[in-house]
Amino acid sequence: MPEHLSGQTGRYAADLPAVQEAATRIQPFARVTPVLTCGHLNQLAGRQLYFKCEMFQRVGAFKFRGACNAVMKLNDDVAARGVVTHSSGNHGQALALAAKLRGINAHIIMPRTAPRVKKDAVAGYGGTVHFCEPTLKARQTMTSEIVVSTGAELIPPYDHPDIIAGQGTIALEFLEQATSLDALVVPVGGGGMLSGIAIAAKALNPSIRIFAAEPKGADDVARSMASGQLVEQHDAKTIADGLLTNLCDATWAIIRDHVEAVVTVSEQQIVDSMRLVFGRMKVVVEPSGAVALAAVTSDDFRGMSGMDRVGVVLSGGNVDLDRLPWT
Amino acid sequence: MPEHLSGQTGRYAADLPAVQEAATRIQPFARVTPVLTCGHLNQLAGRQLYFKCEMFQRVGAFKFRGACNAVMKLNDDVAARGVVTHSSGNHGQALALAAKLRGINAHIIMPRTAPRVKKDAVAGYGGTVHFCEPTLKARQTMTSEIVVSTGAELIPPYDHPDIIAGQGTIALEFLEQATSLDALVVPVGGGGMLSGIAIAAKALNPSIRIFAAEPKGADDVARSMASGQLVEQHDAKTIADGLLTNLCDATWAIIRDHVEAVVTVSEQQIVDSMRLVFGRMKVVVEPSGAVALAAVTSDDFRGMSGMDRVGVVLSGGNVDLDRLPWT
Repeated sequence: MPEHLSGQTGRYAADLPAVQEAATRIQPFARVTPVLTCGHLNQLAGRQLYFKCEMFQRVGAFKFRGACNAVMKLNDDVAARGVVTHSSGNHGQALALAAKLRGINAHIIMPRTAPRVKKDAVAGYGGTVHFCEPTLKARQTMTSEIVVSTGAELIPPYDHPDIIAGQGTIALEFLEQATSLDALVVPVGGGGMLSGIAIAAKALNPSIRIFAAEPKGADDVARSMASGQLVEQHDAKTIADGLLTNLCDATWAIIRDHVEAVVTVSEQQIVDSMRLVFGRMKVVVEPSGAVALAAVTSDDFRGMSGMDRVGVVLSGGNVDLDRLPWT
Repeated sequence: MPEHLSGQTGRYAADLPAVQEAATRIQPFARVTPVLTCGHLNQLAGRQLYFKCEMFQRVGAFKFRGACNAVMKLNDDVAARGVVTHSSGNHGQALALAAKLRGINAHIIMPRTAPRVKKDAVAGYGGTVHFCEPTLKARQTMTSEIVVSTGAELIPPYDHPDIIAGQGTIALEFLEQATSLDALVVPVGGGGMLSGIAIAAKALNPSIRIFAAEPKGADDVARSMASGQLVEQHDAKTIADGLLTNLCDATWAIIRDHVEAVVTVSEQQIVDSMRLVFGRMKVVVEPSGAVALAAVTSDDFRGMSGMDRVGVVLSGGNVDLDRLPWT
């Protein structure tokens, strides 16, 4: 990301002061989500776990934090022209709600193949849905057209300093709610949440250990960390549909320098973890949201020493209740 | 219930001091469950709702409160002989866990037709499961046999002053967590929770209005209130399997004198409400647990005036995730 876009003077797209400012900015709108514990899951993990429950965030996922920060930070002239993004997932809903709360338009571009429930969700938050052909080119063309015709500000799902800073507010809450955490385990897709949390948590507590949790079927971050450079993946396949995307330069730079390791998990581990969250914690979690639990209950992670108290981010709960993956 | 069993000098099986003592007694063991809100459900109900989330209680349901109070209150000599109950539901699990925490035996009698998962749940909490034929007579016979052979104390699911007082602790927490509530809506089966909450809430705030929520297929409380005397029902049929039981004299006396009205709901309303809790609140609720939401979103309740802030008890979350009723 070019320096002039980052709004930061440091070497990364976001830093602790930016995250703290984001927390102040979104405080009137976002929820402080609860941290839950579960004795049964502690036993499975072999350590004390603390779960940050972002399914209780507005729109049912952490994405509202970043979208809200980005929308509320716009100056009035820019905001008046509205915002635009392409997303058939939680970011689209989050941006629609944030725009509604600011009283401006949100244009959400999604492929015409997206399920009707996704369109309805965005429309329910007051966003305008634009359908395009389900190709990258069609999406980019339509985004450009809307930017040109409306002057709306593009707010991408993670490649944006204000999004990264907004997602980082999770760390500020989490480290206050669950004290003396030795490590945090965070799911990674585009890396907005992981990088925001990592930059904030490490600034607050340099000895805290940060781990990424990633599906084996979309393991570009594991391969990037192994090779030391950003690896792109175009054949990602996983039930965790929020984690299909690649990192960008802004998130990669932070992750490369702050994340100790990536724990990859199988599809079966993801489904099993999802069911455990439903059955034992009595909380609804989406597949992407259960990936960090799958990581901490894996043999790889259980074998690591020196961590008694581990924070796990359950990132969202927007799942198709008619097609739960174990039924 | 005979006066000598009630442990109370008043006219009811429990009173506010008994509930307050129960709260102190269970405090080291039970969770203070969170109160959640949901904008979408407020819209459906036409008023501000506060949800007391008892699926986050230990064993996944409010039943732990009463069982814990009853077990911890036993004197050491009695406790040493263990406890016994008949239940294939949440009370059995709750009694097993409470006994385990006290370091005593729990004998849980259930019909041999009960699903294996129910047996495993009780065994998982350290209880001893005894199977009997699925008839009332077989159950009573086996209960008597175990009482005689072991000297264990019978702790029934609701017809017991310490159970009623324990369930009443919900009201103490709820009225502190959500201030200025105009009404409480509570599901009713045997009436232990409803009577405990009613006696405590009315003592703390005489102007608070108490409503019962009941499935139309098990509407013995609605008919009891209509006729002014305890009506028994032996053909109850509802998906809300925690609400099939009849009131007893102890719970009926409190309900008759403290509950304003019973709101009955259809099976479809229960299933729809359950799905709303999963989908909108991101919380797992069992059918019995969703009955109070079904009540407050019914036309009957929406039509009542003078209530801006209503507390709704979501009583538990132990549902078969392989057979969710909408799939």
